[in-house]
Amino acid sequence: MEEMFGLVGQMRAVPGKRQELIALLQAGTGDMPGNLLYLVAEDLDDPDAIWVTEVWKTRTDHENSLKLPAVQDAIAAARPILAGFGTRAEMRPVGYSG
Amino acid sequence: MEEMFGLVGQMRAVPGKRQELIALLQAGTGDMPGNLLYLVAEDLDDPDAIWVTEVWKTRTDHENSLKLPAVQDAIAAARPILAGFGTRAEMRPVGYSG
Repeated sequence: MEEMFGLVGQMRAVPGKRQELIALLQAGTGDMPGNLLYLVAEDLDDPDAIWVTEVWKTRTDHENSLKLPAVQDAIAAARPILAGFGTRAEMRPVGYSG
Repeated sequence: MEEMFGLVGQMRAVPGKRQELIALLQAGTGDMPGNLLYLVAEDLDDPDAIWVTEVWKTRTDHENSLKLPAVQDAIAAARPILAGFGTRAEMRPVGYSG
């Protein structure tokens, strides 16, 4: 059985565009088969940064999500307001309460 | 109304002790008032590292959790097998599906 897959990463928006980036991410990620968690959060110490934590039933589910039209549209729309990526890690979720 | 509060951070166990660290974290964090998410995950690229993502109703709930006996016991027990902390960020969760 393929194990659970997770991602955590920081993204930086172009100054003043964080809210727009968040809205795009939320719009594109509402309905993704195999997604167990998609958490978007504002970094409290960097006004342009957000953190995304994702949990997927499998890595394959995550890879398939990148082919979904809504996700591809969100990525394309976000590109002009993305200043860069910070820390990023692939993970195997082992415990999950809440 | 106090806003939601989140934390994301990497911890490194002493080599060979990651599973023990995970078990301690899970044992101590099962029942924490105001906790909406406590996700523990193994870093796939660093055999000693784990990532913890937390979501709390409020920052105050998080601060109070640090006074819970079970959490204090877990912190004390983990100290000898903790090699260090990596990235850490405080966050304001804005979107949360799954």
